[in-house]
Order: sequence, then C-alpha cells, then structure tokens
Amino acid sequence: MHITALAGGIGGARFLRGLLHHLRSLPSQTPAANARVTVIGNTADDVTLHGLRVCPDLDTVMYTLGGGIHEEQGWGRAAETFTVAEELTAHGAQPQWFTLGDRDLATHILRTRMLGAGMTLSGVTAALCERWQPGVELLPMSDDRVETHVVIDDPDAEGGRRAIHFQEWWVRLHAAVPARQILAVGIEQAKPAPGVIEAIQTADVVLLPPSNPVVSIGTILGVPGIREAMRTTSAPVVGISPIVRGAPVRGMADACLSAIGVSTTAAAVAGLYADFLDGWLVADGDDKDEHPEGVTVRARPLLMGDVPAAAAIAADAVDLAATLRR
Amino acid sequence: MHITALAGGIGGARFLRGLLHHLRSLPSQTPAANARVTVIGNTADDVTLHGLRVCPDLDTVMYTLGGGIHEEQGWGRAAETFTVAEELTAHGAQPQWFTLGDRDLATHILRTRMLGAGMTLSGVTAALCERWQPGVELLPMSDDRVETHVVIDDPDAEGGRRAIHFQEWWVRLHAAVPARQILAVGIEQAKPAPGVIEAIQTADVVLLPPSNPVVSIGTILGVPGIREAMRTTSAPVVGISPIVRGAPVRGMADACLSAIGVSTTAAAVAGLYADFLDGWLVADGDDKDEHPEGVTVRARPLLMGDVPAAAAIAADAVDLAATLRR
Repeated sequence: MHITALAGGIGGARFLRGLLHHLRSLPSQTPAANARVTVIGNTADDVTLHGLRVCPDLDTVMYTLGGGIHEEQGWGRAAETFTVAEELTAHGAQPQWFTLGDRDLATHILRTRMLGAGMTLSGVTAALCERWQPGVELLPMSDDRVETHVVIDDPDAEGGRRAIHFQEWWVRLHAAVPARQILAVGIEQAKPAPGVIEAIQTADVVLLPPSNPVVSIGTILGVPGIREAMRTTSAPVVGISPIVRGAPVRGMADACLSAIGVSTTAAAVAGLYADFLDGWLVADGDDKDEHPEGVTVRARPLLMGDVPAAAAIAADAVDLAATLRR
Repeated sequence: MHITALAGGIGGARFLRGLLHHLRSLPSQTPAANARVTVIGNTADDVTLHGLRVCPDLDTVMYTLGGGIHEEQGWGRAAETFTVAEELTAHGAQPQWFTLGDRDLATHILRTRMLGAGMTLSGVTAALCERWQPGVELLPMSDDRVETHVVIDDPDAEGGRRAIHFQEWWVRLHAAVPARQILAVGIEQAKPAPGVIEAIQTADVVLLPPSNPVVSIGTILGVPGIREAMRTTSAPVVGISPIVRGAPVRGMADACLSAIGVSTTAAAVAGLYADFLDGWLVADGDDKDEHPEGVTVRARPLLMGDVPAAAAIAADAVDLAATLRR
C-alpha cells in the first residue's frame, strides 16, 4: 500500500506523525500496516537568509518525523541555542526578524553547500533525511525555485503597494497587514520534482493534511502537472479541513484565504479542491454547511493536541479513503 | 606617524596588541602616540569549510585586537560554543578535523555572504572590522585567492606524493608529516589588495612581527609587488625573530623552514629578509650568530607571555627603527 500526502509545515508535519503512529499501530497483516508514505512538501516559503537556503516546511516535516522538533513551538529544533544569531545581531546583519537557531543552522549550511555543489533540492533533501530518518519519502514539490511573495499596501511605494517575501509577511508582520495579492513567483516555469507525479498517480490513497490551503497546499497544486495528477489519479483523495468553525486550527490561514477572496470555512476550502476531492474530514458542525458535490464529508474532532489525537484523525482519513472508489 | 606591519596569525596578533598597548601608553605629545597602524594580513591559509570562507589569520588579528579572542588558545572566540559543529558531525559532514565554533561561524557566514554578493575580501574585512574595531587598518595581502598547499609523501598517490591544503597539514597532521614542498597556489596571478603597496611605501616604520617566515610573512612577500615595495620603501624595516635559540617561539615554523631548506635559527630567518631588512630583534644569545650584512641586530627577551611583555618588545622594535635610516 502506498499513501501520498501533500504537506506544508506544522499542521502537515503533526498530521503525518499521527499517520505514521496509526499505521505502525495496526496489526502487521493489515495492508496499511506496511504502507509506504510519500510526502510532497511545499517549498514556496523557502527563503535565503544570511546567504543560507532555508526550507521551513521541509525541515518542519523532517524534524517532526525524525524526532528533532521543538515540540511546543512546532518548528525549529529541540534544545536549540542561538549563539550564531546573537553574533549576527552584534554585527548588525539583516534581517533580524527571522532568528535561526544553531542546530537548525547546521541543516541550512549543509543544504547551501550541497546546492552550491550542484545537487538538486530533491538530492539535498534525501541526503538530509539520511540523518533524520523521517520514515517517509520526503520530496520537495519542485527542484525549481518558487517563492511566495505577498503584495501589501505601502503608501511610500510606487503605486501604493509592494511585494515582500512570504516569510517577511508571516514572521515579521504576523500576517496582520492585509495581503492584497499572493504570488507564487516562478511557479509557471517550475517542474514537479522527480517522483512527485508518480507518487500521486500510483498511490492507493492521497491525503491532504490540514495545511494552509493557499500558501502550502495551494502552492503545491499550482506547480504545473500536480493538480492534473490529483484529478487523474485512481486513488481516492481525502483531505482534513484546516478550518474549524470559521477559524484556522492554527496559523493564519484566514489572512491567506481573504487575499484570494475565499471565506474561512471548511466548505469553502473544500471548494478549492472540488475538482479532485473525494473525502473531507471536518469538525463537528461544519458538516452542516453545503459542500461541493461529490465530496463525502465526515465530521469528527479535528484538534491534534497530541500524537494519539493526530493518529485518530489520520486513522479516520485512511478509513474514509477505504470506503471511496474513483 | 604611520606604522605598517605584515602579519600572520597568533604571533602577529599578539605582537600587534602589544604594539597598540605601547603606542597608547606614550605621552600624547610623542609622535608615535598617535601613530596610525596598517596591518597587511596573510590570506594564504584561508580555507573553505562547509561552503564557508574562513580566513584564520585575518580573524585572529581582528579578534585579538578587538577583544574577542580566546586568550589561552590564541585563536577562535572567547566563550565559544560548538553546537553547529556537533550537528554537522551528526550529519557526518566532512571535514571533521577543523572544528568551527558557533561565534566564529557568524564571521564566516557573513564573509561568505558578502563575498557571494560580489564584495572584495578587502571590503568584507573592513565591514567585519566595523564591529571589531581593532584599532588598526586591516588589509588582506590580496583580494585574489591564494592558497598554501603542502606536498607530502603518500605511497598510494601517483608519483608517491600529493598536495594537501595547508590547514589539513597544520591542523589535521600537526605538521608532523614532512613537507616536501610548500606551494602558494595562485600567488603569481595575485595582485596586492588596494592600499597594500601604498601602506608599505608611505609608512614611517615597517614591522615584521614574529610570524611564520614561510607560510605567513613569506607568502605575503610572495605576492607580486610586495617584496619590491619592502625593498624600495624609505621606511626602516624592523623584524622580530620568530625563532629563539633554534626553536620556534610557538607554532611549527621549523617544519616549514625545513621544507624550504632553511635552518631554524634567527640568523637564517633574517637571511630570508636580507634584501630589505634593516633591524632585527633576536633572543639573547642569538645575536652571536652571523647575520646578513647591513642588518642591525639587537638582543632582548622575546617571550610575549602577556600584553606588557609584548608591548615591551614592540617598544624596542619601534625604538630600533627610530635609530635606523635608509
């Protein structure tokens, strides 16, 4: 059995950890007990800081599944220290709104070195996973550079608006400044990374964890060929709503949905996936809303407070998929 | 008054700190009290590690004069931590024979970023000195890349010998494997960095701290134009012997001298500088040896055990220069 999931950062990573926990808890004769899991990670919030290439979503998945994550925070390394960052600040190095921990920095130093030596991001990610052993095959959505930029109002800028890197909007401005437009720069030219299309088309189940529907899942789907693969795969596609009763479970997905003129409801997010979505897990009550035709909606508690809670959600997603046929 | 010094790493840096201490202790009406000091630093032991450009000698001078040096060790940062290095090791990243501290790494990250943005090493060094305020103008000998390689015996290599980076010989092999040849790769094409020739030619005094005569001072002198400037400057050139009674004061200069067929004596080192050296400070007893003609030799204790001791040596060097005319 082969399960493929599209994933952003924290929400995706916690769901995937729950999924692995669930699969490993199954009796060994169950087909799903030995399921192979492929994760297609968002790379559009990648950013170059201090000359080092940082892939926040890939790293969050890698650290979470590999046992290195800062548990409370949900991103970055456990037992992190910030000596290098202190020094960079003492030098006045910019930007200072994104603090890289020492342990985390080693990942970025290695990645930058390998990219500089001509390796693809896929190759680099596989090399980093040699250490982390996340228990999944982690693929970047693309080896080509795609960067999400956010257009914000700026009275001083020409035309009254300017585009900033997604991370600047998310981390420095806490997404509190309205996003007038969200651009995935480079996406039209991007090719899916090796294995991505195959992982969707040959999967037995495709899952959409509760990741940001605009800047995580939405961007992955925007890479030419990926959305088409979602439509044409013979596997049922089951998603978990990142929106619970009109608000994001975590993060600031509402600010992203507003930017694209979509309301912050589970049903509206399902609408973004209507052309390929088969099953949709929503929070109790959200199933009363009108969902796109052809989508089987199930309601259940969606809070991933701990690993068993995430595992139970993943179990329901896999079970729902088993009832669906394309 | 303008003093220019050529310098390698630890010995050069400690001498320069003594020099500044001495100059600042002079009565303000003394011309030397307000002397401007230019340091021409060796860059041939620079090395790229984990994709980051490391300039050990420039950094040792910068940290020592800027108050950031690890005092006992003589190189690297005080209160250093090694979190990033631990992580790199956990990844199996090579090489592991050169450990970069976290604080030190910030310097290399910034340098690499600035070089990558197209800045010259001179520009980068000036930018780093903005923070460190070393109290001298620190110039790399060249903005062009020069790297010292050491030829060692290797029965497995073609021809029975192979060349390794100086740092590998010095740090990993502790210079314990005989150097059959020492090569300054790239030196023929290197140009002196902006200001280097002027600093030698317009100085009132030129000093040679007790740095390694082969791989530090020797390499600086090998940059086309620098040795000629030493010969033609109107300033007296005064050196401090790095050899005391047949042994290096510190480091492994003897292993370097053997490689070029020069004996480990103060007089033999003076011979390397015979075409421009005017004054030479040696340890008591070493003045009995035969020195090159035209060199004024003075004997005094040469151990730089603390800052006042280094300052006293520097004071003697400056005083000796004042008695010499070209």
